Amino acid sequence: MDATCPLCLKIQQAAKLPDDELVWQFPCSVAVLGPWQLYHGYCILIARSHAAELLDLPPAESRSLYDEMLLLATAIRAVVQPRKLNFELLGNQVAHPHWHVFPRFATDPHHRQPVWEDLAQAEADPQVRTRCETGPEPRDQTIRRLQRELRRITGLPA
Amino acid sequence: MDATCPLCLKIQQAAKLPDDELVWQFPCSVAVLGPWQLYHGYCILIARSHAAELLDLPPAESRSLYDEMLLLATAIRAVVQPRKLNFELLGNQVAHPHWHVFPRFATDPHHRQPVWEDLAQAEADPQVRTRCETGPEPRDQTIRRLQRELRRITGLPA
Repeated sequence: MDATCPLCLKIQQAAKLPDDELVWQFPCSVAVLGPWQLYHGYCILIARSHAAELLDLPPAESRSLYDEMLLLATAIRAVVQPRKLNFELLGNQVAHPHWHVFPRFATDPHHRQPVWEDLAQAEADPQVRTRCETGPEPRDQTIRRLQRELRRITGLPA
Repeated sequence: MDATCPLCLKIQQAAKLPDDELVWQFPCSVAVLGPWQLYHGYCILIARSHAAELLDLPPAESRSLYDEMLLLATAIRAVVQPRKLNFELLGNQVAHPHWHVFPRFATDPHHRQPVWEDLAQAEADPQVRTRCETGPEPRDQTIRRLQRELRRITGLPA
């Protein structure tokens, strides 16, 4: 826990996150629905432990985080059936281990490129931002479908 | 093995890769030095097995690939001492599991952004391409330093 880290704060308040954000609480991480639902099903998986680098997590936690990322991605794939999944752990702005899981769709004219060019435009242009934020269904509905799938594959209640 | 996959082909020919490309042969993957040495130490870790998605690797291989990625990143960090490490598995163009490990430096004016905006420019502009390809030392020298570190941390010969 780092008192100055916004992701530590989010983890601490995970139980209070709104219905259109919290997807699943794993033993070592918390999954939230990401802001860019043009990539429908896009989630961010935040490690419960703070570390500046993935390499600085204890090895057992790092492996659990990886396994939880694969579980989450398995659910995302089942629910939205993307052309491809993209996995990214960057932390250039917030150095706390968190995985971006971006489903990519053939309907996205830039599906062969990383998402970040379009997202840089979204940061600069309110119209592009709205287009990138808006998915094909309400956020809480996507979350309920992900939770149903996660209950099925983990055998656990949400 | 997929006969039409360029990364399967590279894996098959790993032993013949030139001295300025091959970094390390792991049990489940092969590490090569990436083209963009502005991100000095940037490596690509290619799974030995073909799968269209990371999720489709057998679980034991997927976990070994992850452990090998962490070993490689540990060596990269020791050798180039970056501000941050970025890990990305995309496969939008070549759907064979491969991890990009990008070291990021405070000297890069865009170090808080993903690498892909600058790399999109590099694809379009030969001058930017040269700037992004050129690291602070010859490629084979970087590789020798990574190999020395990998020998140290794995206790194995290259």
